[in-house]
Amino acid sequence: MKKAVVLLSGGLDSATTAAIAKIEGYEVYALSFDYGQRHAREIGSAKAIAKSIGAVDHLVIDFDMRKIGASALTADIEVPTDRSDSEMSIGIPITYVPARNTIFLAFALSYAESIGAEDIFIGVNQVDYSGYPDCREEFIEAFENLANLATKAGVEGQSKFRIQTPLIKLTKADIIRKGLEIGVDYSLTWSCYQGGDRACGRCDSCKLRLAGFAEAGVVDPIEYE
Amino acid sequence: MKKAVVLLSGGLDSATTAAIAKIEGYEVYALSFDYGQRHAREIGSAKAIAKSIGAVDHLVIDFDMRKIGASALTADIEVPTDRSDSEMSIGIPITYVPARNTIFLAFALSYAESIGAEDIFIGVNQVDYSGYPDCREEFIEAFENLANLATKAGVEGQSKFRIQTPLIKLTKADIIRKGLEIGVDYSLTWSCYQGGDRACGRCDSCKLRLAGFAEAGVVDPIEYE
Repeated sequence: MKKAVVLLSGGLDSATTAAIAKIEGYEVYALSFDYGQRHAREIGSAKAIAKSIGAVDHLVIDFDMRKIGASALTADIEVPTDRSDSEMSIGIPITYVPARNTIFLAFALSYAESIGAEDIFIGVNQVDYSGYPDCREEFIEAFENLANLATKAGVEGQSKFRIQTPLIKLTKADIIRKGLEIGVDYSLTWSCYQGGDRACGRCDSCKLRLAGFAEAGVVDPIEYE
Repeated sequence: MKKAVVLLSGGLDSATTAAIAKIEGYEVYALSFDYGQRHAREIGSAKAIAKSIGAVDHLVIDFDMRKIGASALTADIEVPTDRSDSEMSIGIPITYVPARNTIFLAFALSYAESIGAEDIFIGVNQVDYSGYPDCREEFIEAFENLANLATKAGVEGQSKFRIQTPLIKLTKADIIRKGLEIGVDYSLTWSCYQGGDRACGRCDSCKLRLAGFAEAGVVDPIEYE
């Protein structure tokens, strides 16, 4: 069986991505990060999802992005709520964490090379995405190019690393429909940027999620405040 | 004053690189990693070097590469010693840490974006290097391309990130000569891959260092076993 490293945040997109990797016949090696995010409870969701899809292993790497700061997800800056669709569609939001997906993919590459995997799955999406530069196809292609120059396995030709982005062109509603078809249990997922017991329903991430479920005509199984 | 992030391992190359950044008029923001390396004492060297060159700040990021494993620098695999020049020149050694410089540069990029720096200095070298794929110019160029697609500052055009590699075409002896010219205190540096109190003098890193000092006609100021 082919091995794949799957970046698993605990959110809806990465849970769907992990299930797709599994359905496509990969042995899933899940990778999550405890980086000082205010919504560190997503790690618990990631663990439950990894278990539910039968991941072979689940690695959680800890590091402290708060040392670097400058994001509402990690520093002491308020997460914006109740933004309109037009506000959400302009620019890159304050929840942007500098170079986060570059860091995540760098660790994924290291893990992939160590276990002999060629495929790295990441649930980025450039349709209903949050305006982050490191969720775009152009960025992913640049990382794939880098991956094959950066590694022993790439340079020696033992591996041809591929960054797989099965959701990149799907809307949030399409992602949810796809996930439900292949049995993703969305009650295990966590999307809210806030650190509360229940999802706030008001941050950009909750709003995108709720709009996706509404468009898909399905009830979101998680609880909101 | 322009700001630069300088990757500082505590070794000879990165100490020289930091001094070059300083001499070129940058405010130096040093960045080191405590990643489970067996020679973690290099962190202490990095701190002393950052202080000696007058770095504005020195960030140490901790994460555990031993979770990923597969290198003699982090896993329970013996560091090779007493290899001949011809043995050292063949292939990529067991001390290779999968995708390490990709991870280091990803953090450096995040730090640079956060503090508003455009320049990232890294002391890679493809002449007297240890055979690592992520020390080559091709890799550095691919990372620079990625950096400008991966970040808010890059995409919005506020910054044009540059990966500066002042040592890339120098021999070890040239690096030492250059460093001595600009006042690098090599007694503060640590190159040995082993975790001992004194440098072993027998691992690839010690051997490259000793050959460099010999060729430069200078006595290495650190103690060996």
